[in-house]
Amino acid sequence: MQFEAIRYEVADNIATITLNRPDKLNSFTEQMSHELIAAFDLTDADDDVRAVIVTGEGRAFCAGADLSLGAATFDYAQGATDGPVRPDGSIDWSHQGVRDVGGLTSLRIYDSLKPVIGAINGPAVGIGITLTLPMDIRMVARGTKIGFVFARRGIVPEAASSWFLPRLVGISRAVEWCATGRVFAAEEGHDAGLFRSIHEAADLMPAARALAAEIAASAPVSVALARKMMWQGLSMQVPMEAHVIDSRGVYFRGRSADAKEGVTSFLEKREPVYTDRVSDGMPEWFPWWPQASWK
Amino acid sequence: MQFEAIRYEVADNIATITLNRPDKLNSFTEQMSHELIAAFDLTDADDDVRAVIVTGEGRAFCAGADLSLGAATFDYAQGATDGPVRPDGSIDWSHQGVRDVGGLTSLRIYDSLKPVIGAINGPAVGIGITLTLPMDIRMVARGTKIGFVFARRGIVPEAASSWFLPRLVGISRAVEWCATGRVFAAEEGHDAGLFRSIHEAADLMPAARALAAEIAASAPVSVALARKMMWQGLSMQVPMEAHVIDSRGVYFRGRSADAKEGVTSFLEKREPVYTDRVSDGMPEWFPWWPQASWK
Amino acid sequence: MQFEAIRYEVADNIATITLNRPDKLNSFTEQMSHELIAAFDLTDADDDVRAVIVTGEGRAFCAGADLSLGAATFDYAQGATDGPVRPDGSIDWSHQGVRDVGGLTSLRIYDSLKPVIGAINGPAVGIGITLTLPMDIRMVARGTKIGFVFARRGIVPEAASSWFLPRLVGISRAVEWCATGRVFAAEEGHDAGLFRSIHEAADLMPAARALAAEIAASAPVSVALARKMMWQGLSMQVPMEAHVIDSRGVYFRGRSADAKEGVTSFLEKREPVYTDRVSDGMPEWFPWWPQASWK
Repeated sequence: MQFEAIRYEVADNIATITLNRPDKLNSFTEQMSHELIAAFDLTDADDDVRAVIVTGEGRAFCAGADLSLGAATFDYAQGATDGPVRPDGSIDWSHQGVRDVGGLTSLRIYDSLKPVIGAINGPAVGIGITLTLPMDIRMVARGTKIGFVFARRGIVPEAASSWFLPRLVGISRAVEWCATGRVFAAEEGHDAGLFRSIHEAADLMPAARALAAEIAASAPVSVALARKMMWQGLSMQVPMEAHVIDSRGVYFRGRSADAKEGVTSFLEKREPVYTDRVSDGMPEWFPWWPQASWK
Repeated sequence: MQFEAIRYEVADNIATITLNRPDKLNSFTEQMSHELIAAFDLTDADDDVRAVIVTGEGRAFCAGADLSLGAATFDYAQGATDGPVRPDGSIDWSHQGVRDVGGLTSLRIYDSLKPVIGAINGPAVGIGITLTLPMDIRMVARGTKIGFVFARRGIVPEAASSWFLPRLVGISRAVEWCATGRVFAAEEGHDAGLFRSIHEAADLMPAARALAAEIAASAPVSVALARKMMWQGLSMQVPMEAHVIDSRGVYFRGRSADAKEGVTSFLEKREPVYTDRVSDGMPEWFPWWPQASWK
Repeated sequence: MQFEAIRYEVADNIATITLNRPDKLNSFTEQMSHELIAAFDLTDADDDVRAVIVTGEGRAFCAGADLSLGAATFDYAQGATDGPVRPDGSIDWSHQGVRDVGGLTSLRIYDSLKPVIGAINGPAVGIGITLTLPMDIRMVARGTKIGFVFARRGIVPEAASSWFLPRLVGISRAVEWCATGRVFAAEEGHDAGLFRSIHEAADLMPAARALAAEIAASAPVSVALARKMMWQGLSMQVPMEAHVIDSRGVYFRGRSADAKEGVTSFLEKREPVYTDRVSDGMPEWFPWWPQASWK
C-alpha cells in the first residue's frame, strides 16, 4: 500500500508511523484516518513488528482537524462524509447513521496487537491529542502545546475520548481541560499523568525507540496477550473476570516454547530466544471479550 | 426562593453558592440539603450561569453533620427523617425505605449541567468533604483540615462516596482515609489528587473565579455535553459506547451556530460570540443514559 | 493450624503474616497459597484482629514462582496441579478446567474483612508483586526491586492483576511494566502510585504497624463495611448503586452502639470504646453484591 498522508517504516522490530503533512501541521483528514487504519493492519500482521511508534513530521504532531472548509468544517451534512439525514429530513442517530472518523481511527489503535507509543514532537490539538489516548504510552517534547479545544470551537470531544480521558487523567482534569478548552504546556499534561515523560526535542525519538526496544525484547505473544488483558481489565466489572482469563492465559502460555525458553534462559543467565509468533500463536479463545458486531 | 442555610448569587456568568451557617461551622442539615438541591435546579435552568462555585461562609467549609442531637444524631428511627421500620418492626432495606440525605444532595450535584468548582475555604469533614466529591474540581486553602471520619463515629462513608472516592484518589487512599478516619491536611489530599490546587486563603476565591471564567468563555452547550460525556465515560464499560455518543455529539454540534462561530472566530483570530443555549439547545437524545426511575 | 511456608502472629489487634521460606527468597508454592488462604480465614474470624500486615522473612519479600521444576515450571499439564486436558486431548478452558493458584490467593485477600497492608521488605517479582495488588496499601523498603516479569518468561500476568493493576497505576504504566517485563526500583513504583510510601529498611515494619494501629483505633464493623464499600465502588457502574448501599449502611450503623459511642466520645473529647464486632455485627444484607457461585 502506498501512503501519502503518513509514512510507514519498520526497523529493528519497531514500526514507525509518521503523520506526514508537515506544511499543514499534519492536520487530520479522512485520508489520514484511512491510512492510519491500514498501517495498524500492517503492524498487526507483521511478526517483525513488536512495537509501534507514532510521531509527526516537521514541527507539529497534529494540529487537529483540517479547517480548510472553514465554518462548514464540522457540518457533515454539507461535507464529504455521508450524513445520517433521512429523505424526510429526520436524522438517524444510530451508529449506522453517524460515525466519527476520529473514533474509527482511535478504536483501531485501541485494537492493536502490538504496544503503541506516541512520540509527540510538537503541537497536538483536538483530534491531534484525542487520537493518542488509545496509545499505551505518550512521550512528549518539552514545551509542546496541547489542547482539548472542542468547546472553544463549539463542538464536543470525540475519538471515544470520554472513555479514555477520565481513565487516563482522572475526571477532574478531564472536565477542566474539556470545559475550558485551554491550550496548555506538556508539563501540565505530565503532572496529570497524560504523558509518561518529557524529553528535549532531540531526545524524544531516541527515548521512544529505547522503550520500544525494551518491549521488543519480551516474548511477543506474551506481550500481545498482556496488552489486551490490561486494557480489557479496565472493562471488567469484577476481579473474578480477570481470574478466569489469566487462568487460561497462564495455562496456555505455561506450556509454550517461549515459557520453557524464558525460564531456562533465566536460570542459565543468558538472553532468551523466543520463537512463538503473534500471527499464528494466539490462543483459540482470543479475543475472549464480546466483539462489537457493527465495527 | 428564599434561602436560609445557603446564599445564592450570580455574577459574571458564575453562580456562587455559599454554605451559610457560620456560627455552626456550616454543619450540614436537611434544610441545607433541600436548599442545595433547589440551588442546582436554579443554576441548571439559568442560561446566565455557565459555572458554579460552592464555598463556605466564615472559617469553615462544612464541619460535617450537625451533632446537636448527640448520640441520636445518626439514629434515623429516632430522628426527623421518616424511617424504614415497618409496622411489624422489620426494616425495609430497599431504596424506598432508606435514603441518605447526603447522597440525594451529592447526586443532584453530579447531575449538574454546569461545571462545579468546590472552593474549600476551611475544615471539610464527613459530609463536608463527601459532598464535594461529585464536583468537577476541588480547590482548597492551605492547611485546611479534611477528614473521612465516619469509622471514628461508628458509621460508614455516605453521599455515594464509595463510587466517587476510589475513582478520584485510587482505592488505596480511599481505604486508608476511610479505615483510619484520620483528619489530615489539604497537602495530603493534594498529593492524592483529591484537590486540583492549594491556595493562600485570600487567593482561593479569586483563583476559583478565574477558572470559572475560563469555563464561561467556552460554548455553553458544548461544555454541558462535554461534562456529562466525561462523567458518563466513567460508567461506560467499553470505548465503543463513547464512540456511539461522541459520533452523535460531533454531528449534532458540528452543524450548530456555535461550531460555525467557533471555527470562524478562530480563523479570524477574534473572540467568539456563542448563541446556543443550554435551556433549549441540548440534543433530543440527551440524556442518553438510562435514568434511575426512582430518583 | 500449623503453618510451614508462612508465620502467623497476632499482637495489639494486628495480625502479621510473614512469608517464611527465606532460603528460597520466599518463592511462591502451592503450599504457600493454601496457607495464605487459611491465614486470611483466621484473620476474618478473629475479632481481635483489626488489621493485617503481610511481609517477608529475610532479605526478600517474594522472588516469584519457585522455578525448581525448571523449564516445566509453568507447564501445569506436567506439574503437580491437575490439568484441564480431557481424555480426548482437548482442553477445558472453563473455570472448572483451569485455575491459577496465584489468583485464588489474591482473590482471598481481596475478600478480606480486615484492611491489609503489604510491607514489602525486599525483592517482589512476578507473583511476588501481583499477590500484593489486592492489598489495600503497599509500603516498601527503599531500593527494593520490583518486576512484572511475565513476558520475559514467556507467560502472562496472573493473580487477577489485569483487573487490579491498571486501576492502581493507570493503563500506561500497567502496559509498560507488563510489556517490558522490566525489573525496576521501588521509587519508580512509588511515582506510579503502586506504593503508598518508601521507608528505610529498619523503619518499614514500625511504619506499617503505626498505620495498622491507626486503623485498629476505628470502629471495626465500620471499617469492614467501609473497606468493602470502597472496593465494590470500583465495580459499580453508576453512583446510584453506591447511594443504595450507603443509605443502608448509614441507617444500619447509625442505630448502632458504636455510633452512639462515636458521637458521644467525640463530644466529650475522650477516646471511644467500640463494642460492635465483625463476627456477629455485620448487617443482614452483607454481602450485598452477587457472589461468584464457583468461588
